[in-house]
Parts: sequence; C-alpha cells; structure tokens
Amino acid sequence: MDDLIKAVLAFRDERDWRQFHNPKDLAISICLEAAELLEPFQWKRSDEIADFLAEGANRRRVADEMADVLILLVSMADVLGIDLVEAAHAKLAENARKYPVAQARGNAKKYDELGS
Amino acid sequence: MDDLIKAVLAFRDERDWRQFHNPKDLAISICLEAAELLEPFQWKRSDEIADFLAEGANRRRVADEMADVLILLVSMADVLGIDLVEAAHAKLAENARKYPVAQARGNAKKYDELGS
Amino acid sequence: MDDLIKAVLAFRDERDWRQFHNPKDLAISICLEAAELLEPFQWKRSDEIADFLAEGANRRRVADEMADVLILLVSMADVLGIDLVEAAHAKLAENARKYPVAQARGNAKKYDELGS
Amino acid sequence: MDDLIKAVLAFRDERDWRQFHNPKDLAISICLEAAELLEPFQWKRSDEIADFLAEGANRRRVADEMADVLILLVSMADVLGIDLVEAAHAKLAENARKYPVAQARGNAKKYDELGS
Repeated sequence: MDDLIKAVLAFRDERDWRQFHNPKDLAISICLEAAELLEPFQWKRSDEIADFLAEGANRRRVADEMADVLILLVSMADVLGIDLVEAAHAKLAENARKYPVAQARGNAKKYDELGS
Repeated sequence: MDDLIKAVLAFRDERDWRQFHNPKDLAISICLEAAELLEPFQWKRSDEIADFLAEGANRRRVADEMADVLILLVSMADVLGIDLVEAAHAKLAENARKYPVAQARGNAKKYDELGS
Repeated sequence: MDDLIKAVLAFRDERDWRQFHNPKDLAISICLEAAELLEPFQWKRSDEIADFLAEGANRRRVADEMADVLILLVSMADVLGIDLVEAAHAKLAENARKYPVAQARGNAKKYDELGS
Repeated sequence: MDDLIKAVLAFRDERDWRQFHNPKDLAISICLEAAELLEPFQWKRSDEIADFLAEGANRRRVADEMADVLILLVSMADVLGIDLVEAAHAKLAENARKYPVAQARGNAKKYDELGS
C-alpha cells in the first residue's frame, strides 16, 4: 500500500495535477467512478452476472473501475492528511461495536434495526 | 494492507455476512457510501470547505466515509478474486499511457481531448 | 407540471435560496437524492423488495425520494433555462432512433450492442 | 406531463421492456444517469461552468442527461403505482414545514441545524 500511495502521488505530481485536487471534486470523482463500477451490473440477474464475470475481459474491466476508486481515495487521503488504512481499521472497530456478533450473525439488518 | 484485508474478512465471516456479499449489492453499497462521502461538500464553496475540514470532528466524519468505501472495495475484491493493489498499479500504468506527461502537465482535460 | 414548477420556484424564492442554486451543486444534489432512492433496495432480493413495497409507509418513503429528485430536476431546469418535459420528449425521439423496435424488442442490450 | 407519461410507457411497451423494469434496477439506473448529469461539472470552477453552459451543444447534453433521469422517474413511478407530480407536491408541503420561511430565509443550513 505504501508503494501504491507513492506511485499515485508521483503520477499526480509529474502531471502537476495537485492544483486540481480539491476535496469537493475528488469526492465527486469517487462518486462518478463508483457509478461506473456499478454500471455493468445494471439490468442483470445474478446468473447473468456470474456469466459476465466468468469472462476475463469483463473481470478486468470491473477491476479497473475498482482501481479508479482506490486511486482517488488515496489522492483524497493525501490532500486531507488522512491515513486511509488506519481510518479503515478504526471504522472496523466502530462497526464491531455497532454490529455485535451475537445479534448480527447471519442477518443483514442495519444496526439500528437490531434488538438490544 | 494485508492486515486490513484480514481484518475486513474476519469481521465479515464472524457475522456470517459472506452470503449477502454478491457483486451487484457490493457495487451498490460502494456507490451509496461514495454519495455519503460527497454529502458534506454539497452547497459549500471552497472557503467554507476549508473551515469545515479545519474541525477535527468533521475530518473524522470524512475519514469514516472514506473508510467505508475502502472496506467495501476490499470485500468486493475478495468476492471477485481481484488483487486490489495490483489492479491499482496496473490502472496507473494504463493512465500513464493515456495521459503522457508532456501533454497532460498542468491541464485537467480528459485524455481524449488531449492533442497528439 | 406547470403548477409543480410554480410551486417549486415559489418554495425556493420565499426562502431566498436561488443564490445557492448553481448548476454544479444542483447536479450533486440530484446524485445524492438518487442514492437515497436506491438505498432501501440495497441487499434485498426481488421477493424481499415486493414485501418491502407492500407496506404503505415504505412506498411513501420511496415516493418521497423520487419527489426529491424531481423537485431538484425542476430547480435545475429553471436555472439552466431548460424545458424539462420538452427535453424528455426530444430524448425519447432520439432513443427511438437508437433502439429501433425491430431489434430492441424484448432484449435489454445497450443500443451499441444491437446488430444492425 | 400526462403526454410525457404516455410517450414513456408507449416507448417501453413497444419494445416489451416492462419485464426488465424492476424497482431495484430502475433505482440503479436513476443513480447512474444522475452521475452522468454530474460528470460535465467535475473539475470545473463556476466561471468554467458558465463558459461550458454558454455553448448550445453542452447545454443540450446536460438537458439530455436531465431528460434521462426524468424518463426513468416516470418509468419507476408507473411500476410502483406512484403519482410522481402528486408526490412532489406532498414533499414540497413537508419541506415547507421542515424549513419555515422565517428561519430558512437566505441560509443553506439543513433543517435539523436550524434553531427553533
């Protein structure tokens, strides 16, 4: 991940793109790339999705869209001075409190719908 | 990153949530979390965003939303058998071809608008 | 629709909110409201969605989110000087050319995948 | 609007596309079209947006994306048995209660941040 962060920032700085990387436009970009990631799944049933993903070219396209989201997350984390991996560990710890194993096990209800 | 992947999958498996993690719903979730990440920037000018992000609680909220996106990306990569960091390196290499430094330097145009 | 447009603009102008209605933030808002509309369908199979929508309160929540998107579309159309209903008629005519009945009938393929 | 609804449903039924129009995929589609509407505003400052929108072809592209969202809203409303314009009037009435003119006038705060 450290190598990836270095590569993302080097790519940006070689092109002098740091000046465009304000938090609002980066958040917009993440949203738009997330939409592109969702796009191939639209109008498809789960069996059609399995067929779609069985082809290497399609799985690579999906991997590319996931990569775009990650690259933008890394860029936004740099601009905001956030350690992304640390933030994810902290969020997991918070989620563990909100969704205790005993109540959450095997059910998809949102935490505020779980009985106490 | 390896530790994060392990932690994300352990969190999921302790709750037996793998069964819900189909690619389409994961892609939807990434889209929705990306929208939550964008939400605090809405209706704000850049000076208002600077003030907003100067407060620790707000920056932590933004970090939380970024963490949600990353956790879901890690979950989706696992389901699809994709190495997320490798995919991001491959995408950066592709972007480097699409946006050569000489033409892209200091301008925000999309690659298909760049002169050759 | 004319009554709705009048009501949307009167609501906005009574609150002096025209000043905030720049096209970029309106487009962001439409995106965020569309995400809220998608939210209740996440993690649900089609039978669970049928159950969900059988309850009046849930259907009203969905109607509310659809209303939010429409209200923002009307606001954005006003700011840009676009006749929304006319634009939709024009787009339908364009779609009719892109998806001729003979090829499109009963299949969900995108128009650029249709044989000629 | 009644004419538009008739035209949207006729377009759909001539192509036998009602079978694909489940609420979840329609909500996904609205989300994706909203992202396409946001796309041209990304990375642009307000003066660049004004220049962009001054060109007729760009304004027509934006109008097209808005039309796509409206057409999908109309399709989804039909599937759910919702009167879209009535829902928007009801939502405006609710918003009027949440954002009283006296407190909301000239400020962009969300209703839950308004003093009482």
